[in-house]
Amino acid sequence: MNPIKGHLAPRSALHDFLAPDSIAVVGASLDPTKRGYKAMVGLVKDGYPGTIYPINPKADQILGIKAYASLADLPGPADLALICTPAPSVPELLRQCGANGVKGAVILASGFGETGTEGARLEQELLAAARDAGVRIVGPNTSGIFNLHQKVNLLALDNVKPGDIGIVSQSGNMLLSLALEAQHNGQVGFSTYVGPGNQTDIGFEDYLRYLGEDVHTRVATLYVEGFRDGRAFLDVARETTALKPVVVYKSGATEQGQKAASSHTGALAGSYAMTVDLLRQAGVSVVQYSDEILPVAEGLGLLQQARGKRVAVLADGGGQATIASDRLAEAGLELAELSDTTRSRLGEILFPQASLANPVDVAGSTDTKPSLLADCMAILAEDEGVDSVFLVGMFGGYSIRFAEELLGDEMRGAESMIELARKTDKPLVIYSLYTPIKPPALRRLHEAGLPVYYSIEHAVRVLAALGERGHYLSTCADHDVPSALTPAPEMQAVFARARDEGRDLLEPEAKTLLRTHGVDVPIERLARGAEDLAAVASEFGERPVAMKVVSKDILHKSDAGGVRLNLQGEVALRAAHAAIMASCQTYDPAAEIEGVLVSPMARKGVEVIIGVSRDPIFGPVLMFGLGGIFVEVLEDVAFRAIPLSRHDARSMVEQIKARKILGGVRGEAAVDQEALVDLLLKVSSLVEAYPDLKELDLNPVIAYDDGYAVVDARVIVTENPVIEEADS
Amino acid sequence: MNPIKGHLAPRSALHDFLAPDSIAVVGASLDPTKRGYKAMVGLVKDGYPGTIYPINPKADQILGIKAYASLADLPGPADLALICTPAPSVPELLRQCGANGVKGAVILASGFGETGTEGARLEQELLAAARDAGVRIVGPNTSGIFNLHQKVNLLALDNVKPGDIGIVSQSGNMLLSLALEAQHNGQVGFSTYVGPGNQTDIGFEDYLRYLGEDVHTRVATLYVEGFRDGRAFLDVARETTALKPVVVYKSGATEQGQKAASSHTGALAGSYAMTVDLLRQAGVSVVQYSDEILPVAEGLGLLQQARGKRVAVLADGGGQATIASDRLAEAGLELAELSDTTRSRLGEILFPQASLANPVDVAGSTDTKPSLLADCMAILAEDEGVDSVFLVGMFGGYSIRFAEELLGDEMRGAESMIELARKTDKPLVIYSLYTPIKPPALRRLHEAGLPVYYSIEHAVRVLAALGERGHYLSTCADHDVPSALTPAPEMQAVFARARDEGRDLLEPEAKTLLRTHGVDVPIERLARGAEDLAAVASEFGERPVAMKVVSKDILHKSDAGGVRLNLQGEVALRAAHAAIMASCQTYDPAAEIEGVLVSPMARKGVEVIIGVSRDPIFGPVLMFGLGGIFVEVLEDVAFRAIPLSRHDARSMVEQIKARKILGGVRGEAAVDQEALVDLLLKVSSLVEAYPDLKELDLNPVIAYDDGYAVVDARVIVTENPVIEEADS
Repeated sequence: MNPIKGHLAPRSALHDFLAPDSIAVVGASLDPTKRGYKAMVGLVKDGYPGTIYPINPKADQILGIKAYASLADLPGPADLALICTPAPSVPELLRQCGANGVKGAVILASGFGETGTEGARLEQELLAAARDAGVRIVGPNTSGIFNLHQKVNLLALDNVKPGDIGIVSQSGNMLLSLALEAQHNGQVGFSTYVGPGNQTDIGFEDYLRYLGEDVHTRVATLYVEGFRDGRAFLDVARETTALKPVVVYKSGATEQGQKAASSHTGALAGSYAMTVDLLRQAGVSVVQYSDEILPVAEGLGLLQQARGKRVAVLADGGGQATIASDRLAEAGLELAELSDTTRSRLGEILFPQASLANPVDVAGSTDTKPSLLADCMAILAEDEGVDSVFLVGMFGGYSIRFAEELLGDEMRGAESMIELARKTDKPLVIYSLYTPIKPPALRRLHEAGLPVYYSIEHAVRVLAALGERGHYLSTCADHDVPSALTPAPEMQAVFARARDEGRDLLEPEAKTLLRTHGVDVPIERLARGAEDLAAVASEFGERPVAMKVVSKDILHKSDAGGVRLNLQGEVALRAAHAAIMASCQTYDPAAEIEGVLVSPMARKGVEVIIGVSRDPIFGPVLMFGLGGIFVEVLEDVAFRAIPLSRHDARSMVEQIKARKILGGVRGEAAVDQEALVDLLLKVSSLVEAYPDLKELDLNPVIAYDDGYAVVDARVIVTENPVIEEADS
Repeated sequence: MNPIKGHLAPRSALHDFLAPDSIAVVGASLDPTKRGYKAMVGLVKDGYPGTIYPINPKADQILGIKAYASLADLPGPADLALICTPAPSVPELLRQCGANGVKGAVILASGFGETGTEGARLEQELLAAARDAGVRIVGPNTSGIFNLHQKVNLLALDNVKPGDIGIVSQSGNMLLSLALEAQHNGQVGFSTYVGPGNQTDIGFEDYLRYLGEDVHTRVATLYVEGFRDGRAFLDVARETTALKPVVVYKSGATEQGQKAASSHTGALAGSYAMTVDLLRQAGVSVVQYSDEILPVAEGLGLLQQARGKRVAVLADGGGQATIASDRLAEAGLELAELSDTTRSRLGEILFPQASLANPVDVAGSTDTKPSLLADCMAILAEDEGVDSVFLVGMFGGYSIRFAEELLGDEMRGAESMIELARKTDKPLVIYSLYTPIKPPALRRLHEAGLPVYYSIEHAVRVLAALGERGHYLSTCADHDVPSALTPAPEMQAVFARARDEGRDLLEPEAKTLLRTHGVDVPIERLARGAEDLAAVASEFGERPVAMKVVSKDILHKSDAGGVRLNLQGEVALRAAHAAIMASCQTYDPAAEIEGVLVSPMARKGVEVIIGVSRDPIFGPVLMFGLGGIFVEVLEDVAFRAIPLSRHDARSMVEQIKARKILGGVRGEAAVDQEALVDLLLKVSSLVEAYPDLKELDLNPVIAYDDGYAVVDARVIVTENPVIEEADS
């Protein structure tokens, strides 16, 4: 089973008040419907061992504990203040907290930024007061916190037990739902819960660092509606996932992303798909459905990660073996190929009619001896070609379905499975159809830390998460980012000029930037006027060329009639040039035209698109996909946060659904994927080296079996900060 | 709520023995581990009111019931025989059953066709014996049957209660799993269960007809590994789904389909995707995940179907409202636009901070009065723009979470919801995070026939199934199939000739067939030799044309160098012709070449593909998709069983994921979808009219904004039956 392996050195200031020695309840109440009463009950009932200071100007005591009129009256400092009073009272209370030496305040009140302008002003006031007072804030607009190992149950939840799942949830109902599921499950417990609320002071990244450091937390589980600083979260996640699993459910899977972008790449960024890709890049286990959060967190907490994708399925019924196989394939897992030794060892203990291929179907062999299942699992776990073992069927129910006398053997089977789990470094994942009625053998497994799943679907999600985590950890070594690129002074000058002129890079400038740093851009010539065409024509000879207008004022060159293809010879070039000039002048009479760019027609290949945008939440992000309808209609793209490691670049090429096309279809050769990987890494370094590069589109890049060609390139330059004029 | 509306006139012979007045247990046993003992226990314990005849040559009585040495000794006939003895004994026992007047026999033994050749022989012997004896067979290799309303519990399952879900499952474990889930659920019960086993005599279609007729069955639920006669199943399903919901889980979602096919269409047919499309065409509710079978069956049984896709979500927490919205969008459902009246009525009873857009978030309004939720549901259900109401959150748990005193109001809320469900014709679907601990209000809802779901995900699957069923029933009127097409004698002659010559139709023949029946195929000319080219050239003038070789021996025309494009004028035609002839003769010196087909180059448009194959299980099937990589790489296609209704044809065009492209992307005009629908219907009628047409590929068809052009057509002809020579 999975030990807690290590922890970040304690650095988070959150420990000071999320594991407090003393708590002030501001707004402690005698009214049982109030949070200020419930919190007191939660602390008292759970036996909080620290000091409790109820604050209530009208009461002498609450639940038998001496009450104080205000924070100023306390005999000593409180580590934590729970503030249950309405929004307008909070800033002043924070000042009092500061005076008292309170380290952190949990602010339940709503009525801040989430309600509009006036609330936002109050929230700023609150933040300023907290900063002045040196008090950190959880919330406002939070459902509260608990720390069950410290008996700090400020939510007064019944029937939650201490355990090793830490939770940060922006939805109070979600926490409640997880708590009730845990109660029903019977074995799962929680360490710390925090509702981050408006994240005015402390954001998800801070809470994650805390959970990463917390010795009682084995799995950090987060329900996220929105990150405040996505980039910071990714950084903390990368550190944390190296030590313990981080499970994230991100809501808003179908929301349309923010569309701040002026380029095509931007329109697809900011989406749920992007967020998921970036989280996975940082090793986070992303859960897609809300009812899988707890099963996956439990599995990642208790079970070994898998070394690979090869699953051995052991079943006592063909139907569920088939269902398991279907789900495994859908989840990207494989049925392990069993060795001859494994098959013959299984053959020795099972009936002749048993199926020894994977899925292994015992075909009745275990009906009178269910403990044989444990023996089979041990044999499967010893197979070098097996990464995880998946038991599917009615274990735990043999003594119910067949004969009560089997209970002893079934319990022995459970003990053997527990023993095996201790010895092997492979995960044992167990689904039993008897889970709903919790028979003794399943209870025993669960108590010993071997979870048993209610549905094949959930069990497979756990197997997938264990496999993904194992894959992530085993490829960590490849996660190093190539060393940065030195910006070229002449290109920095180009950016500076563009900024000064309030324009983006012209296509030739963008391509020069790429060429400067070793990107393959086909040769091309800028003809500033008709007088340059003769030289250009003689250079390209009879090769067919393309001609495109160059103008900072014309973004949509085709629409402006600014593109002509398949031209051969000087006569054709001259005709095309005249046509382009006429057409573009009609399109935009004011357009400043630099000239036309002439380049050889690109060979046929596979069109791909590479884009960069700077996401307001996650910072610079790279996008990769096949060109045309794959991006525009199917949205079949992959995202990674910049900077990329080689592993990241490779994984994004492998991720897109249409990757088969890169492998060669309809008789085409496979494209040179390593060249694309190199290109992705180059683009990533480029973005790091030139902070003025705001967005970049290479669309299309034509990929060949021997490299690629960047056919069109667009670079958008960060605007100069607008200098606001003072009101006059 | 959803009444059982009517039934097929009883026609199925299965009633005679699935609701038997007397049962013989052949192999009744005193050994508690034997099925022959368990079955006796099941009958006795459940109080089976009919006559039980234990058959055991060595016992006088079993469980106090007089035993007989053989079927021949029975004092009267048995409607049903449960045969618990090994495979080799079965054929003789069936003869005895016949003599006794047994109507149906349930054969548990395995060791038949599923084990190999010898078993298959025994299975044939068994079938022959049953036919001779006039006895119908359930199985062999079945887990058995039960009919709980008749107290026939031959599986001796504990804790299953009579109810209205009928089950046919090829997996015994799946039945067990559903039974345990039902036990845990507490409200769901079953009518009849049958394990069809090898379907040697009775197949899924027969069992479905029985469940359709059975007055105790409100929902027919099937777990299917393989259909024996898929076409017959579709026919029965179409009749049954008009009366009651039919839920199917088909295993083998990721199996590679059978590849009997010689054409491209065939390779994609036989797949899971095809099976799902055909089942849905017949109105079946297909369930994708095994853990959704019971929730969906329960929901379809108890709730109204929805009139449309517009869901009103009512939530008491923003987080779960967002999750619900995400899942609804993924399932193809919409958030209803609430009317002004609805909003203002909600506004009158909720706090000012409540969100009155959909999802409606009560924002604390119900914390002290949970019954307000029922009032909100009533308001939402009255909105004309709402098709179903989805309650999401903590209903049932208010009295646990907030204050015990709320229990009375919460129970009143439950009563109001029950009342509303009785009055409204819209489904009310309820998710509560308190479901795991079954508080009183939720128990009350459930008892009154309003299911409460454990996860938002499952609840949304139920909403989707209700919406799909409502959509199916409301479009039933469009399901009429256009009247058949009369075959043309000259085309029948073409088929006859091709069959005689052991070849498929030549491209010009296939196109003539299409043209004969009104399909738009561009004009083209066959040049049998170089001497015809002058006339062809003068006909097409300066229009660019394509030239393709015509030969029954050359299937892959491009590979053979048999295609030339973009030819203009006689000189070009002659050169191309010479090149094609030379190239094809090199490619296959023995090829008989009929000539070349010359046709104008097709205008640019959207390539689609239409294919027909004859599936061994489901009969003639039509496939539609976009051409090229959409079919080959993305497998984005839709299938329907032939004959198609206009509704079917339209729905397949709407089904494909890349349908956006038909609507016009990248500045292209939308294609004429009605013309494509007409074409699909024509092809469907064509296949019906010409039984010799085995497969058909129209690939590509170019779709335009004003019609379409069939650019290539291939028709494969049914082989003459091979006449086997007698062994000599």
